[in-house]
Amino acid sequence: MSNNSFVLKGSIAFSENSKDIITYSNGYLVCEKGICKGAFLELPEKYKALPLIDYGNKLIVPGMTDLHVHAPQYTFRGIGMDEELLEWLSTYTFPEEAKYADMEYARKAYSYFSEDLRRCFTTRAVVFGTLHNEATIELMDQLEKTGVITYVGKVNMDRNGGEGLEEADAAESLQATEDWLEAIAGRYKNTMPILTPRFIPSCSDELMKGLGRLSAEKGLRIQSHLSENPSEVAWVKELVPESTCYANAYELFDTMGTVDCPTIMAHCVYSDDLEMEILKKHGAYIAHCADSNMNLTSGIAPIRKFLDAGINIGLGTDVAAGSSMNMIKTMLISLQASKMYYRLVDADVKPLSFEEMFYLATMGGGSYFGKVGSFKDGYDFDAVVIDDSKMYSMRDMSVRERVERMVYNDADAIITDKYVRGSKIYSRSE
Amino acid sequence: MSNNSFVLKGSIAFSENSKDIITYSNGYLVCEKGICKGAFLELPEKYKALPLIDYGNKLIVPGMTDLHVHAPQYTFRGIGMDEELLEWLSTYTFPEEAKYADMEYARKAYSYFSEDLRRCFTTRAVVFGTLHNEATIELMDQLEKTGVITYVGKVNMDRNGGEGLEEADAAESLQATEDWLEAIAGRYKNTMPILTPRFIPSCSDELMKGLGRLSAEKGLRIQSHLSENPSEVAWVKELVPESTCYANAYELFDTMGTVDCPTIMAHCVYSDDLEMEILKKHGAYIAHCADSNMNLTSGIAPIRKFLDAGINIGLGTDVAAGSSMNMIKTMLISLQASKMYYRLVDADVKPLSFEEMFYLATMGGGSYFGKVGSFKDGYDFDAVVIDDSKMYSMRDMSVRERVERMVYNDADAIITDKYVRGSKIYSRSE
Repeated sequence: MSNNSFVLKGSIAFSENSKDIITYSNGYLVCEKGICKGAFLELPEKYKALPLIDYGNKLIVPGMTDLHVHAPQYTFRGIGMDEELLEWLSTYTFPEEAKYADMEYARKAYSYFSEDLRRCFTTRAVVFGTLHNEATIELMDQLEKTGVITYVGKVNMDRNGGEGLEEADAAESLQATEDWLEAIAGRYKNTMPILTPRFIPSCSDELMKGLGRLSAEKGLRIQSHLSENPSEVAWVKELVPESTCYANAYELFDTMGTVDCPTIMAHCVYSDDLEMEILKKHGAYIAHCADSNMNLTSGIAPIRKFLDAGINIGLGTDVAAGSSMNMIKTMLISLQASKMYYRLVDADVKPLSFEEMFYLATMGGGSYFGKVGSFKDGYDFDAVVIDDSKMYSMRDMSVRERVERMVYNDADAIITDKYVRGSKIYSRSE
Repeated sequence: MSNNSFVLKGSIAFSENSKDIITYSNGYLVCEKGICKGAFLELPEKYKALPLIDYGNKLIVPGMTDLHVHAPQYTFRGIGMDEELLEWLSTYTFPEEAKYADMEYARKAYSYFSEDLRRCFTTRAVVFGTLHNEATIELMDQLEKTGVITYVGKVNMDRNGGEGLEEADAAESLQATEDWLEAIAGRYKNTMPILTPRFIPSCSDELMKGLGRLSAEKGLRIQSHLSENPSEVAWVKELVPESTCYANAYELFDTMGTVDCPTIMAHCVYSDDLEMEILKKHGAYIAHCADSNMNLTSGIAPIRKFLDAGINIGLGTDVAAGSSMNMIKTMLISLQASKMYYRLVDADVKPLSFEEMFYLATMGGGSYFGKVGSFKDGYDFDAVVIDDSKMYSMRDMSVRERVERMVYNDADAIITDKYVRGSKIYSRSE
């Protein structure tokens, strides 16, 4: 398999589009030089010479894309969850991130993050680091070794960070960004830089504008946060009084991106029609982080509306406001959130179907990386092989039923092998 | 340890009341003849002769009470979750439960349920069977062997069950109930019968009244469902037009119980002030099933209001509308539900604190079984020992923080040992 060409056999499931999951029981999945050539009930003659790995009855699904995760927060996940966003940031998050000035600390903490990322359902991720260049390069070095394909951002923040987590001013922050980009130029195959203004309350107007210029000059993508919490939304309105809405504030700084260089905006819980228009116009991606949004009492984003409007959207775990990097647990919580939005907020906004949620976790977010997140011909071969035999059943469940059951019982879905672009990057038996 | 007297050492956490979690790092927990004698920082002299098991840094928390779980539904958990209650019952649940007429089927399916119940955080459970006497006795036999202490109900339903899952009439259902009670009289130490009218749509007025009489005559407790889904609530109003509300319908049939013989009502999503008054007056227990209520798009029950009103309340997994028997996952989802009720429904109803949720899962539901769910002096010694070392951290987390982190990361909280009334009923090393 040195040229990443092989055939997998097993119980295959993948999205064809946002409405349909295609399944094959005892199906064949062909990978040629890291690219998927499709799934088949009968293996076509021309692929019969390829090495075949028979996974028996195990599930094989596309690798998942985590569009929003904070690496430095991983080691304190699951605590302080009675707080809301701004209190949680100042009490838990900022003091923790300040510790990444210490490289010994960063090295160890990022090794926990990187190793667990390698072992989970995620094959692509878009990652926040901290404002520290050295620690962020360490994170990128470690991520490169995992085989997971990522965008990683050195965070920019020149105000409201509190003690030990603030750059002096826009000039210093922009210079640090240029230094970071220079230091990593040509260094990685799978790890790409992304500009990362934390959010408007953390970045002066000058810094935001500087990052907008840098993005345009270098063709660099941007990630940030948008309309997560009511107090945050109100604060941004004060900080950028000339903006018509939070998304427009980003627009004013030229950080909302373009269709060819799309910005990721995490959350969008409070995005209304005006914000939706702006997101759509710029080809931005929404990183929907339902676990985080429920944990920090932020609210529930109207995902059905975003989907219907044709806005790009995927899922994010948002560790550590989301408490786990497990994308299938994130799917479950996102499904529950969608059902509650329908029941409690607006009965005209129907819950997402399981098919739609599976699509978001795979193809939806995957499209940020290109042809990623499906087993259709021509897609990058990202795959996760899952042993669900611990979930005893009294009937022969269909592959479709098993995929749904796995999402609702994440603890009993055991990853056997994980492939990224045809390379096996994790095996339970290793 | 033949007389169930011993000392455990470890990181101990338990509720003192609904507001406070008491913790001991390197603490001692004393069990004498199955009863907890308290937790201590220094082991009192008089207990030093008892055998001591040193669990090192492992967490030790009280066993949890699952106030509402359907045993026959376990083997199809996690599928059909795009449906609402009534469609889900007729499409998935009732056809599955009908299969328990076949004893071979029942024996195998219940073995999966019983074994997984033995291995999870639950030390006490209140369980629905099916309407079949023989299968229900098989379930009780199996549960008795696990060591978990349970109430189990043969289900009553003489209408609207569909093909193969309906008793002919009230007389047949009541006779079957008497036969069942006679067959199990004196048979178990840890497994108690509970009268189980499924819910009003499944039980004729005559059947309900008969069960009310039986409860009073024999001092038997009752469990049922209340105000789960809008369509169900409307249906009950049609079926019992003279009732002032759903809870009042149960009252009219004398099935709402008494303080000394309390009824458990699952869900109460749509219980208003009038229903709350009725529940309180009768000393009824609410089984709060947030996972189920989100999965079936039922809604969110106002738990804060119930707590403030002094109504008895605990948590239920409600498998298979809830998809897992994992009580700590249920705690997480219940916390998220409580936060969303505050954010989306009523800003005057504050979210439950982590302390309050931990209390509900342990002491709240435990009180249904007596002095259960705490490590205070005089409580039954139900304990779960947990290895959370897979969750790496960069700091020395407090025991309180580790308990919260465990709830938000259930997949990485590994049960090492489980005790019920001082007997070890499960060990990972077995």
